Amino acid sequence: MKLLLKEILHNKLLWLLVFVPVVLVAQNLAHDAHTLLFVLSVLAIVPLAALLSHATESVAAKTGDAVGGLLNATLGNLTELVIALTALRAGQLVLVKASVAGAIVTNTLFMLGVSLLLGGLKYHEQEFNRISARMQAGLLFLATVGLLVPSALSQADSVAGAEFTQKLSVGLSVLLIVAYALSMLFSLKTHRELFASAAHGEAGESLFPMGVALATLAGVTVLVAMVSHIFVESVQQAAETFGMSPAFVGFIVVAIVGAAAEMASAFAAARKNRLDMSVGIALGSASQIALFVAPVLVLLSYVIAPSPMNLEFWPSAVVMMLIATMSASLVTNSGRSAWFTGVLLLMVYAIFAMTLYLLPPRVA
Amino acid sequence: MKLLLKEILHNKLLWLLVFVPVVLVAQNLAHDAHTLLFVLSVLAIVPLAALLSHATESVAAKTGDAVGGLLNATLGNLTELVIALTALRAGQLVLVKASVAGAIVTNTLFMLGVSLLLGGLKYHEQEFNRISARMQAGLLFLATVGLLVPSALSQADSVAGAEFTQKLSVGLSVLLIVAYALSMLFSLKTHRELFASAAHGEAGESLFPMGVALATLAGVTVLVAMVSHIFVESVQQAAETFGMSPAFVGFIVVAIVGAAAEMASAFAAARKNRLDMSVGIALGSASQIALFVAPVLVLLSYVIAPSPMNLEFWPSAVVMMLIATMSASLVTNSGRSAWFTGVLLLMVYAIFAMTLYLLPPRVA
Amino acid sequence: MKLLLKEILHNKLLWLLVFVPVVLVAQNLAHDAHTLLFVLSVLAIVPLAALLSHATESVAAKTGDAVGGLLNATLGNLTELVIALTALRAGQLVLVKASVAGAIVTNTLFMLGVSLLLGGLKYHEQEFNRISARMQAGLLFLATVGLLVPSALSQADSVAGAEFTQKLSVGLSVLLIVAYALSMLFSLKTHRELFASAAHGEAGESLFPMGVALATLAGVTVLVAMVSHIFVESVQQAAETFGMSPAFVGFIVVAIVGAAAEMASAFAAARKNRLDMSVGIALGSASQIALFVAPVLVLLSYVIAPSPMNLEFWPSAVVMMLIATMSASLVTNSGRSAWFTGVLLLMVYAIFAMTLYLLPPRVA
Repeated sequence: MKLLLKEILHNKLLWLLVFVPVVLVAQNLAHDAHTLLFVLSVLAIVPLAALLSHATESVAAKTGDAVGGLLNATLGNLTELVIALTALRAGQLVLVKASVAGAIVTNTLFMLGVSLLLGGLKYHEQEFNRISARMQAGLLFLATVGLLVPSALSQADSVAGAEFTQKLSVGLSVLLIVAYALSMLFSLKTHRELFASAAHGEAGESLFPMGVALATLAGVTVLVAMVSHIFVESVQQAAETFGMSPAFVGFIVVAIVGAAAEMASAFAAARKNRLDMSVGIALGSASQIALFVAPVLVLLSYVIAPSPMNLEFWPSAVVMMLIATMSASLVTNSGRSAWFTGVLLLMVYAIFAMTLYLLPPRVA
Repeated sequence: MKLLLKEILHNKLLWLLVFVPVVLVAQNLAHDAHTLLFVLSVLAIVPLAALLSHATESVAAKTGDAVGGLLNATLGNLTELVIALTALRAGQLVLVKASVAGAIVTNTLFMLGVSLLLGGLKYHEQEFNRISARMQAGLLFLATVGLLVPSALSQADSVAGAEFTQKLSVGLSVLLIVAYALSMLFSLKTHRELFASAAHGEAGESLFPMGVALATLAGVTVLVAMVSHIFVESVQQAAETFGMSPAFVGFIVVAIVGAAAEMASAFAAARKNRLDMSVGIALGSASQIALFVAPVLVLLSYVIAPSPMNLEFWPSAVVMMLIATMSASLVTNSGRSAWFTGVLLLMVYAIFAMTLYLLPPRVA
Repeated sequence: MKLLLKEILHNKLLWLLVFVPVVLVAQNLAHDAHTLLFVLSVLAIVPLAALLSHATESVAAKTGDAVGGLLNATLGNLTELVIALTALRAGQLVLVKASVAGAIVTNTLFMLGVSLLLGGLKYHEQEFNRISARMQAGLLFLATVGLLVPSALSQADSVAGAEFTQKLSVGLSVLLIVAYALSMLFSLKTHRELFASAAHGEAGESLFPMGVALATLAGVTVLVAMVSHIFVESVQQAAETFGMSPAFVGFIVVAIVGAAAEMASAFAAARKNRLDMSVGIALGSASQIALFVAPVLVLLSYVIAPSPMNLEFWPSAVVMMLIATMSASLVTNSGRSAWFTGVLLLMVYAIFAMTLYLLPPRVA
């Protein structure tokens, strides 16, 4: 508990934890103040995600390389997963799909773009390990392509019945999870040296002891679930108040909120001229969404959702995901970066956000 | 004849030659047993393709570098060409187009994927000549783009009348064949050092003397044509029995059967850590389909087919070909490979196969 | 004036200047001879563009690095801009959009292709600075993506009302111009060493003194505007005579005519084995069209055009621009080139031209 407090005092982001009780109380007092609840729940999720991330790293550090890496990789997107599961249970499929697509686009364009910009403002030119960056960009591209095949093909041929799409989505989900398991074997066991520099943990960071870490992990996950519940309930009406579509909220807001902790790590690494780590976090996290989070959501939708979820994204989301992963490939290809590279990635992201804000997509 | 027998005893694939007389006899005895004839003809084509490939290499080795290389390159996809011509004469345009698209996708995803996987299971990390791999991937990309322009543009604008598409296809075919002739000049004459390692022939392999080789070449081509005839006749009804669409048969079955011999070479090279050769065979063969086989089929369709063939592919085939060549570019870009790279290529291929199996495309 | 004459005698291209008075006189004498006026105006614009380019470089060389670079970059596409503005004022939006799209495609496929071919015919293999070429190809890709977002998304979702597209185009134009300003800061100030070799000026070239240069700049711009006026007026009917659509004229004719001067520089550099410079001119010029010329036209259309212009291109133009920038990325990726690379780029360009000639696109 002392350690937890020390960590909170040390990390200014965690001061936002005060919003966790606030939002829980507020929900009971003012159940209909959707906009207020929405803002409060966003403010509460950010520090919880950071805490979750720190606890995961602590457990990972204690359990040794292979198991730890597995934990780290699997729980790395735990916040996104919990939010998406809550939305899934509430039957908000548009929000779920938007948050999956948005997480891929936000990680590759926004997280990477800000990292390159921040790093570039401090260092004239930054180099990073071209070989592993290219391999990771390649994996991300193929993972994204796998995820998008049903959407791309069904749009191209415009024949896909709902039943066909559903069947293909389930088959594909199983395939993606198998690929994910193999990618774990690859990055944690047979070729872990390639991914070494992308380890999230900082050398000098103070870690929780096992007991505190596990308790934090369990407790915070419950808190995230509770706050997510408020978030998902309030989001629809709050979004209307702000003039945002559910797609915009899922694509931009959920994606940034859910990845806040990883962004903090990636940005810090970039400013320390450790761009390898920033690239690893951004691309690895995006790959994980495509290979793990998305198929798990499809399979779990049969258990917990009012109606099953498929992997058919709306057309412009497909275009955006493809452009985002291709941009990441091109940018990481040269192994060098300067501030303007970051600016261009952010410009593309800004254009996507502007379009989504103006043009509410219609999702089946 | 003795040499031919020795080769057959040496190469276990050639034991399948026994199916050649079997299928020819079976066709006379049981003309309506389509499923049986289909399976037998597939089993008979595989060793014939291998023999054809060996005879071509023998002739090529004897005729010296430039002419030999030309022969090797032109006859390298002879099996695919003969099968496609048989289907063309039977008016099965869907099967023809599917086999062209399938050959490009199968060579870049399946042949390359299995090569990288087999090589990666034996060697921790494999390096290959990045410069020539990139140049070949670049050529393949541009060749594929050339082939796809009519489909892409006519889909994009949805104005293309049938007459326009036909005219564009003929003009384009002439252009592609000119480009192919120039690519021969490039890879065999002016810059052959770049392609040196992709020569199909093995150093220690025993080659046929000129006479045997020429006779084998002629005789086996006739046999392939005869068996192809049975194959094409039986495929439609056999496919229905197996629940496969003509597109699936052309895309997956014909492509794998027709390229069996090249695959054997590519896989063997990968296991000998000669990934340059595997990459060269896979990408070179795919380029050749786009630059030579496809336009030859269009032009010959005016002579031998009931109705002329155009180069308009159905939309999802276009998507698949573009994704396949882009994946090949990305994967060969780093000049390094490990087993998981192969797994990802195969995963994309599996997803394509699954989709084609479930979703019968409609081709004009 | 003597210097101007000397330059004209030295540079054979400038002998075409004789067509400037000819076309101006011809317009008064034979106002309805559209085909003649069209041909004469094309012949007159080419040397004017060359003179404009030389005058810009002279001013740039005199004003020092930063300001000079800015002038050079901003006025580099002055001819295209003046022609497009004239067409814009005449309300010929199809011609304007086609010339923007065509300039990007022509610079990346035709200018780069001919450069690589000419260089490759003289040198067996040419190397160029991979790092800066990749960075420029990356910038071009992102710039093009930014320009194409409205078209891609509105096509994908087919919801975009005209009002929405217009609003998005204006917002996007502002963003693109901001990105252009930042790219100037990047390439002229903070990271100018990366772009050093792409400077247009030749070492041994004789430059105009400041006065002559400024007078030439002003006078020639007026002449270009006058000739452009004749060109735009005659183009529609002349095109009909030649059987060309306005899109073909804008895409191919205007793009080649407008960039004639830059092409001359790029080709000369390639033959001097200075491929860095050729790549820099081709890709830099294409980026500038996307980031500067296109948005300026949108914003100015509110002031000078009968109806405002948006950034929605017709579908096949989008496909062509994307393929062109991706081809440029692939080709420059390896940092090496041989003659066949140029051939393939030109083949893709020829296919595009053939398609545009046969298939008149319909633009909103």
